[in-house]
Amino acid sequence: MNPNSESAELGPALQALIVRAEQALERGLPPAEQSPAELHHAMRYAVLGGGKRLRPLLVYAAAHALGTDSVALDAAACAVELIHAYSLVHDDLPAMDDDALRRGQPTCHIVYGEAMAILAGDALQALAFEILADDMARQLDAATVVAMLHALGRACGAEGMAGGQALDLAAVGRKLSLAELEHMHACKTGALIRASVQLGALIAGADADTLDALDRYAHAVGLAFQVRDDILDVEGESAVIGKTAGKDAAAGKPTFPSIIGLEASCERLAELTDIALTAIAPLGNRGVLLQELAHYSANRRR
Amino acid sequence: MNPNSESAELGPALQALIVRAEQALERGLPPAEQSPAELHHAMRYAVLGGGKRLRPLLVYAAAHALGTDSVALDAAACAVELIHAYSLVHDDLPAMDDDALRRGQPTCHIVYGEAMAILAGDALQALAFEILADDMARQLDAATVVAMLHALGRACGAEGMAGGQALDLAAVGRKLSLAELEHMHACKTGALIRASVQLGALIAGADADTLDALDRYAHAVGLAFQVRDDILDVEGESAVIGKTAGKDAAAGKPTFPSIIGLEASCERLAELTDIALTAIAPLGNRGVLLQELAHYSANRRR
Repeated sequence: MNPNSESAELGPALQALIVRAEQALERGLPPAEQSPAELHHAMRYAVLGGGKRLRPLLVYAAAHALGTDSVALDAAACAVELIHAYSLVHDDLPAMDDDALRRGQPTCHIVYGEAMAILAGDALQALAFEILADDMARQLDAATVVAMLHALGRACGAEGMAGGQALDLAAVGRKLSLAELEHMHACKTGALIRASVQLGALIAGADADTLDALDRYAHAVGLAFQVRDDILDVEGESAVIGKTAGKDAAAGKPTFPSIIGLEASCERLAELTDIALTAIAPLGNRGVLLQELAHYSANRRR
Repeated sequence: MNPNSESAELGPALQALIVRAEQALERGLPPAEQSPAELHHAMRYAVLGGGKRLRPLLVYAAAHALGTDSVALDAAACAVELIHAYSLVHDDLPAMDDDALRRGQPTCHIVYGEAMAILAGDALQALAFEILADDMARQLDAATVVAMLHALGRACGAEGMAGGQALDLAAVGRKLSLAELEHMHACKTGALIRASVQLGALIAGADADTLDALDRYAHAVGLAFQVRDDILDVEGESAVIGKTAGKDAAAGKPTFPSIIGLEASCERLAELTDIALTAIAPLGNRGVLLQELAHYSANRRR
């Protein structure tokens, strides 16, 4: 593998938007000192411990591509990242993936205990909807806010993220087809990534055709991100002597390389990137941040 | 104790509204046969297994008191009960209260496993917001829908239900003051009960003064319901030979009788019922269902 080094890192415009998202999250989360303090601590720990902030970046990038920059974007960026953070806290629980480390740090339930981690996740999900209904309502017309809340609710539920996680659990140790694997990822991570782009586009007042094109982009980028994850899992394996299998393979989870092989996975990744870039081609140079995020999702090294 | 037998059971109007709420829940939940089927099964099991349906009844009763009956009420009734059901699933988990039985049936995680129970709770929370943003949006003006979504999000989060559960966990084995106990209940169960009344009132287009009065009612009824719970825990103890302590007392949970004694708890219950009835007195006969629910919350036998 020889990833394009220029697109393996984010450029200054997206780096600045990460800072903006971090500030929005800091403002949106409850203060650590205020009661119930331990819950607030756990929520902040789950959200403010780093991360790629891909979903907030997609909110901003979609709106910028349509010529809109508004403080309303901060609420949407915050909401999608709170949902993502809550899903990681619950996925890491002993009854789920049982992960003790995330980004090199102890996971939320290791630090705060299982009960508090469950509650922190629950409260983060509620906060996402509360922030969207509160901050956005002051900036946008109410019908747009309702459409955004509906899109977010749908993306989180049984036909979206939670449903995808259920499919993922059911898939451990089973042999999936490529279509089944892609469907699982489309639900588990794809639904929220599509909602992120949709929220940015709704704030920008996108018409139905533009929403459709951006949704094709988001679907492809979400899947590409996941194919890249699986490829990194294999590459990590061969790079580190003494490790004979990647984490996902060891856990009996189906991956793109395990189903179609590494070479075909790289081809699928290139194909998905092409679909994403084609979908936003009509935006021309205005889609530059979306283009960058598509390249980044396909070429990132971690 | 000699509860008023007439107000210990619900009358035919509220019984009919329970049937209406059950039908709304049946419609709102995803079909059992559809993929991801196990998640859908777990969600339906958590919601459709009975229950008092107090929160839906408060939605309907508040709106009826203001002269409104609308199909939009069904979405609100559904949303608050989905939130309530999800909170029970998560509260029953081994890491939380570790309950194997609810209403005489095995709890969700006993039947479907811990991972699926966590996901079912997560998906039910998302579905509540999705239904509110979808069904309501078709019936009401968007600004009202946003206000309702905001109220529900706030009631579920760190300053509401999830925060109250965190305070409850922190209270086990500790000696709380009466004020601390009431604050814990005001968050843990009171916030969603107040939101239920608020949603019904918002659908009915209540003005600020009416919303205030109904909120005083809801706060008092929510607390009364909990005082009654604690009294039933003690009465159950003396009625059943061979049991030396109620479940809450045995679990080291602070209760009204353990803090202020049984007699003062009964007095507090009467006082709260009086506050509730006084708050809705200006509604006169239109408030009959709300009155009935206040009496029921104070006198119920289970």
